[in-house]
Amino acid sequence: MVKAYAAFNAKEPLKIYEYAPKPLKQNQVRIKVLSCGVCHSDISAIDNSWGKSSYPLVAGHEVIGKIIEIGSNTNQHELGDIVGLGWHSGYCNNCEHCAAGDHNFCSQTKKTIFSQFGGFAEEVVAEEISVIPIPKKLNHKDAGPLLCGGITVFTPIVEFGINKIHKVGIIGIGGLGHLAVQFYKALGCHVTAFTSSDNKNILLKSLGADEIMTSNDLSFLKNMDTKFDLLITTVNVNLNWDLYLNILKPRGRLHFVGAIVEPIKSSVFNLMTGRRSISGSPVGSPKNIKKMLDFCVKYNIKPIVEHFKFDEINHAIKKIRNNNIRFRAVLSW
Amino acid sequence: MVKAYAAFNAKEPLKIYEYAPKPLKQNQVRIKVLSCGVCHSDISAIDNSWGKSSYPLVAGHEVIGKIIEIGSNTNQHELGDIVGLGWHSGYCNNCEHCAAGDHNFCSQTKKTIFSQFGGFAEEVVAEEISVIPIPKKLNHKDAGPLLCGGITVFTPIVEFGINKIHKVGIIGIGGLGHLAVQFYKALGCHVTAFTSSDNKNILLKSLGADEIMTSNDLSFLKNMDTKFDLLITTVNVNLNWDLYLNILKPRGRLHFVGAIVEPIKSSVFNLMTGRRSISGSPVGSPKNIKKMLDFCVKYNIKPIVEHFKFDEINHAIKKIRNNNIRFRAVLSW
Repeated sequence: MVKAYAAFNAKEPLKIYEYAPKPLKQNQVRIKVLSCGVCHSDISAIDNSWGKSSYPLVAGHEVIGKIIEIGSNTNQHELGDIVGLGWHSGYCNNCEHCAAGDHNFCSQTKKTIFSQFGGFAEEVVAEEISVIPIPKKLNHKDAGPLLCGGITVFTPIVEFGINKIHKVGIIGIGGLGHLAVQFYKALGCHVTAFTSSDNKNILLKSLGADEIMTSNDLSFLKNMDTKFDLLITTVNVNLNWDLYLNILKPRGRLHFVGAIVEPIKSSVFNLMTGRRSISGSPVGSPKNIKKMLDFCVKYNIKPIVEHFKFDEINHAIKKIRNNNIRFRAVLSW
Repeated sequence: MVKAYAAFNAKEPLKIYEYAPKPLKQNQVRIKVLSCGVCHSDISAIDNSWGKSSYPLVAGHEVIGKIIEIGSNTNQHELGDIVGLGWHSGYCNNCEHCAAGDHNFCSQTKKTIFSQFGGFAEEVVAEEISVIPIPKKLNHKDAGPLLCGGITVFTPIVEFGINKIHKVGIIGIGGLGHLAVQFYKALGCHVTAFTSSDNKNILLKSLGADEIMTSNDLSFLKNMDTKFDLLITTVNVNLNWDLYLNILKPRGRLHFVGAIVEPIKSSVFNLMTGRRSISGSPVGSPKNIKKMLDFCVKYNIKPIVEHFKFDEINHAIKKIRNNNIRFRAVLSW
């Protein structure tokens, strides 16, 4: 039996759940979970915030683990490899997007926590294509949050060709935001951090933020220059997006990577003035996760995490709900 | 004195208004108005729909005319040239955007109908840079609507590198939309026209529409494939934009060129799924207006217009308000 921590009802504490492991499919591998980050999406799944949870639900999609079984038709991994698994546990491998390496655009993606039991468990299975080797030079104990939080904020670099000539703002400095500051600084961008808490300044400077705007009152945005090429928002609440649109340069982009349940509102005039865009993106493709991990090795980028044992999982989740984690909780057995 | 048709109060019929011509500035030219298209933005200005009108207001920003006076420091036009003037009558000519040829992104643009008296008049002045030579091979009597309506829907071609591999949808088939169908078809795109009226089908086929979707009930969108690279919306009312987002391919774009006063709403999930964008753009730069006019000559693209004499201006405006113009009204003296 596989020991896991499962949600049995929305918004309730997780409980130990034991399930019989399924036989491996030909294109899958089985991973012994060493550690697993806790993402806000796990909480949304536990709480059924998106209306697509079914219970018992085993969340956890920032997995670091060791390959303990390989399917008969796999060739990318070997027993004992240290690997990572993120939001997607499989793809159709047959559509134009999979063929182009844009697996995360596949309409038939399997989700690690919705299509199967996820990583808050002793083991997890996934299709080999969605399982990413962890570079030996990366400290794998802290790497879990890169597999979802990291790739989510790294993807815009690849999608929009961001480089050192660009001014980038990161809205919301938590699990995703603190990685975004490091990524875009390593890239050479001018980086502004927008955060509602004013006790992160020293840390944000050390991560590379050139400017730090700390306020819950967004009226300061009215006095900022229209200087940003890219604003990435990681928050999961609605803000006054028009104020942010107005500090984008012509052809600038306000990009959503944080899931907001309510519709967002914007003024067409603010989009038309200066040909601005609003967009969003979903995690990232396997090829880009590999790119990101190599980038982390090259530029010494590390998630800042708080470690918990799996039997402290409800305590960790409570700290996340109270916004008391700097910056990501990681569970290990 | 210059005879013009001016609005003296919001939403009232225009009246004859005579004003003394101002001396020309060094970088301006004076244009004798031969004809002028009537754009929805003229009606919005007359009605003060955007809250920035002051009266008396002389609208009209799709001007075709003849140069009758040139400023002492101009070199782009000669007396007698047939030229066009659109939404912008001047720029700062000093900022990074003007330097890059993106004059329409300049924050100091002058507007033909807000910064001065516009084209519903015997003459109009403008800075030479904003005045565009009309190619001799273009029938200038019908060309007015290209100067605003045309460039507005042409600009996305240049901005987003649209070409014959792209599937494009045009939402709203009026003054802008009927030109968009012609532009994108001439480019070789697969073109779908979305229109609320079902009596334009034969005409839309003749303009090049590959598919025509005629319905006020947008529920048919739920059954359409996610096949569009670009949807351009020319309407000035709010629709269910999420239904349109969902028929965009990954990396697809819903682009607003019609001014909608109310905020638009969209789901972040629909943006994140497939890295979709919402954007808008303002008319176009002088260099792109020239490109568009050459494109019109090359591909024999013509606005379909109804001609009126200037003394029928209130009749023409009434027909536009009643949505009874196919597809643009053009006034001439």
